[in-house]
Amino acid sequence: MRAGPSQEDIRRHNLGALLRHVHLGGPISRAELTSRMGLNRSTIMALTSDLTAAGLVREELPRETGRAGRPSLVVRPESARVYVFAFDVGPDRLAVARVGLGGVILDRREVPRDRSRFKLDELAATLSGFARQMRRKTSADTVCVGAAAAVSGGVRKADGVVTFGPNLLDGEVPFGEELGRRLGLGLPVSVGNDANLGALAEHSRGVGTGAKDLIYLHGDVGIGGGIIAGGHLLGGHDGYGGEVGHMVINPGGRACGCGSSGCLEAEVGERALLESAGRFGAQQGRDAVRAVVEAADRGDIGAQEGLKRVGEWLGLGVANLVNIFNPEMLIFGGMLREIYLGSAAQVRTQLTLHAMAPQRDLRLRTSALGDAATLVGAAELAFAHVLSDPLEVLARANA
Amino acid sequence: MRAGPSQEDIRRHNLGALLRHVHLGGPISRAELTSRMGLNRSTIMALTSDLTAAGLVREELPRETGRAGRPSLVVRPESARVYVFAFDVGPDRLAVARVGLGGVILDRREVPRDRSRFKLDELAATLSGFARQMRRKTSADTVCVGAAAAVSGGVRKADGVVTFGPNLLDGEVPFGEELGRRLGLGLPVSVGNDANLGALAEHSRGVGTGAKDLIYLHGDVGIGGGIIAGGHLLGGHDGYGGEVGHMVINPGGRACGCGSSGCLEAEVGERALLESAGRFGAQQGRDAVRAVVEAADRGDIGAQEGLKRVGEWLGLGVANLVNIFNPEMLIFGGMLREIYLGSAAQVRTQLTLHAMAPQRDLRLRTSALGDAATLVGAAELAFAHVLSDPLEVLARANA
Repeated sequence: MRAGPSQEDIRRHNLGALLRHVHLGGPISRAELTSRMGLNRSTIMALTSDLTAAGLVREELPRETGRAGRPSLVVRPESARVYVFAFDVGPDRLAVARVGLGGVILDRREVPRDRSRFKLDELAATLSGFARQMRRKTSADTVCVGAAAAVSGGVRKADGVVTFGPNLLDGEVPFGEELGRRLGLGLPVSVGNDANLGALAEHSRGVGTGAKDLIYLHGDVGIGGGIIAGGHLLGGHDGYGGEVGHMVINPGGRACGCGSSGCLEAEVGERALLESAGRFGAQQGRDAVRAVVEAADRGDIGAQEGLKRVGEWLGLGVANLVNIFNPEMLIFGGMLREIYLGSAAQVRTQLTLHAMAPQRDLRLRTSALGDAATLVGAAELAFAHVLSDPLEVLARANA
Repeated sequence: MRAGPSQEDIRRHNLGALLRHVHLGGPISRAELTSRMGLNRSTIMALTSDLTAAGLVREELPRETGRAGRPSLVVRPESARVYVFAFDVGPDRLAVARVGLGGVILDRREVPRDRSRFKLDELAATLSGFARQMRRKTSADTVCVGAAAAVSGGVRKADGVVTFGPNLLDGEVPFGEELGRRLGLGLPVSVGNDANLGALAEHSRGVGTGAKDLIYLHGDVGIGGGIIAGGHLLGGHDGYGGEVGHMVINPGGRACGCGSSGCLEAEVGERALLESAGRFGAQQGRDAVRAVVEAADRGDIGAQEGLKRVGEWLGLGVANLVNIFNPEMLIFGGMLREIYLGSAAQVRTQLTLHAMAPQRDLRLRTSALGDAATLVGAAELAFAHVLSDPLEVLARANA
């Protein structure tokens, strides 16, 4: 119930809105910006000039227009110059990317890891080391405007501390702070839950572009969720919104790492699949999950039974979430892509049995960004500051 | 990603924001408005003048200030002059209220009903008849600025049609349109799901004031939910967001009216309680539920067992919702107030067993508005138009 914005607020908003068009949509003509933003040509020109002067975009003549008359200049993001660092700390890998404005992955390092817990200083040292290597290869006129990390755990909104993450770190961990200190760029490192960032990524650049209400389900060792409701990420009061993996769907069912039993994660996670398929112990991780789906494809009865069982529980969980949220689309990411593709019939059947009638025809999709979803989401989180106040962030980065 | 607002947008926004302060917070001094809205005194004065000229508020000298100097004028809503009609179509009653700006119930009619299904024309005739009776008692200078109805069913966002409501009407019902036609006020009648409107009411005027993330659970024959996430009602893609009553928590459990089994509604609804307590068939409705809770209080073993069983399922459902949404507060409304008060220990135990650690200490509350919650929510829905564009709505109403 605050009052409306000041002129300065409006300018900042407009600069951010224009930059967001260019960042998410790619090169775009001034004429198109005029039309999409509902502003007149002179305002668009002034905004573009400001962003050009700040080195965030550049204007070029289009290659060819096919039309008569003076062509409208095309505004492009300065992808090679303005970038962020994105980090992904998953149960089976560490990934670091240097991502240019516009979402271009300019450089990337990825290393597998075993599932032992990290020590905070070792983890931060490894990740910042990769970032420094990448930074040494950049030219002097590039500028880093943000950094963010995806973690498979809970991140407290108030201070960005990782408060739980059974597969990651012990206790309450000021991960962003430590990583920021080691990076030494004078930039804060934002931290987000991996499934929340996967949702953000699919909503910004993936299969969920344009959907205002979607659910992204991310499977790794555990299962997490990211909810976009009314166009916004559902954060919850403390930042833990979307922990759908711990919705109990089978009371008294399989034991869960959280101490409860019958959670979605316990019935549908990696271990549930491998045990149901009679394959637990030999292999783990994404390859083991893929092997079950492939074996089922080849007619292996054990693998088929396991996949069917897990698919039924997944479908029940999906039906519950669909009833609760009434999304337009539900996206399967991480290893849930493989599981869904191998059990789509079971999932659809459960949806028909348990979802309210008007919601049975929602779109079920697999992640368009695949294993990059969480990393892309981290990059979007890192860009959030520059998009909300382009000039201020750039001034700080150049200072 | 539209551009920022125009001057005219800002004025409309500011008028709405000021009126909202007065509507929700009650009489307030200009000085306080200046401070809360972050606008200067002359802007507040201009906005107040506009709203006063439109007959939406009036300004008065405060009774006493206790301070030296010229007292700041107090801005009051014109509650007796500007009103809406609110309707509540529940399984056991019909209620109609004439509600003044500021949320004052000026007049009210309520009649019990049995649970047979309505015919649309009869229902609309009854409700509009009550409204006309109330209207005849008003003086000539009053003005009706909106109308809205709460129904225990699903309301499609696109057209406001009631598409399902097992206890209410058959098929797809253009209830708002029919009621609006019969009212003959030239105003559209907005229609909302009762639990969604209960959430809105508790968030605006009840126990959830100030909470940005809350869940309101409403129990009648069935169980519905209303979710406030990040300060906004979660509507979902088609308007069916919050149907938490059909979250399956006990696969293969009690049959549900929706065709599935083991839904929260099936395990915790009125019938589940009465059957578990060995009292199904004699009585139904709120009185029957109260009778079980009172019998349990007096030491009746059957009632205690029934309440305990239902409380455990309710607690499991609550734990799931808390994990999914990470709310600050969860509110029990309708007959769930009684059930929660009679089984708080079971609910808390389930929450401890199944909710993620950081979320176990959320606030569990009972509805502050009680049986009026859905009706108050309907009034808020009816006022939404006037609060988003005060002058336009008033001009139309006076035309």
